[in-house]
Amino acid sequence: MPVAELLPLTDVTACCTPITLDAMTAEQAEVMARTLKALADPARLRLLSLVAAHDDDEACVCDLTEPLGLSQPTVSHHLKILVEAGFLTRSKRATWAYYRIVPGSLDAVAGLLTSV
Amino acid sequence: MPVAELLPLTDVTACCTPITLDAMTAEQAEVMARTLKALADPARLRLLSLVAAHDDDEACVCDLTEPLGLSQPTVSHHLKILVEAGFLTRSKRATWAYYRIVPGSLDAVAGLLTSV
Repeated sequence: MPVAELLPLTDVTACCTPITLDAMTAEQAEVMARTLKALADPARLRLLSLVAAHDDDEACVCDLTEPLGLSQPTVSHHLKILVEAGFLTRSKRATWAYYRIVPGSLDAVAGLLTSV
Repeated sequence: MPVAELLPLTDVTACCTPITLDAMTAEQAEVMARTLKALADPARLRLLSLVAAHDDDEACVCDLTEPLGLSQPTVSHHLKILVEAGFLTRSKRATWAYYRIVPGSLDAVAGLLTSV
């Protein structure tokens, strides 16, 4: 999926109510589908899981390539999609980029799926 | 996505723990990504939302095509993916097929995203 199609997670929480609360509009469904597409990939789910499992919920990209068995460009591509979608933040220190889970970002998506 | 790639939701709840609890295995990530892909489509999100908004959480396929502005074959295709993924049940009465949300199915996915 092109990264440009993704919107930050703030757009999801701003746009959308839980899907079983009211009939969604076409626009709400587009925004929520884009956010779910960012999650709906095995490599990206494992990256989120690996980052969350690290000390301080932060991981260096150098620690993420080997467990996934993917090349660093491929891992960086998936990390970029997760940053664009608002699930990770990226900070560069010395040689490496470090990724951290955005607090509450997964809970926000969960809240849109939960029945009310 | 071919319907054959989808697994019933019971496989997700059986296979997987919340993604931030432990580093996921490749197999767990594959199962969870397939379930999220079933949701990560604007037409399918709107169908779930429309079914949930109906009386008794049940809707006839004849009530779902017009609000979406899609053809009945296209709507039936999306409904089939949601049934295969374990989010809807289908029952046929007289001429029409009726769809109902599987209780707890969206909550189960939400539970895998929620931080613990």
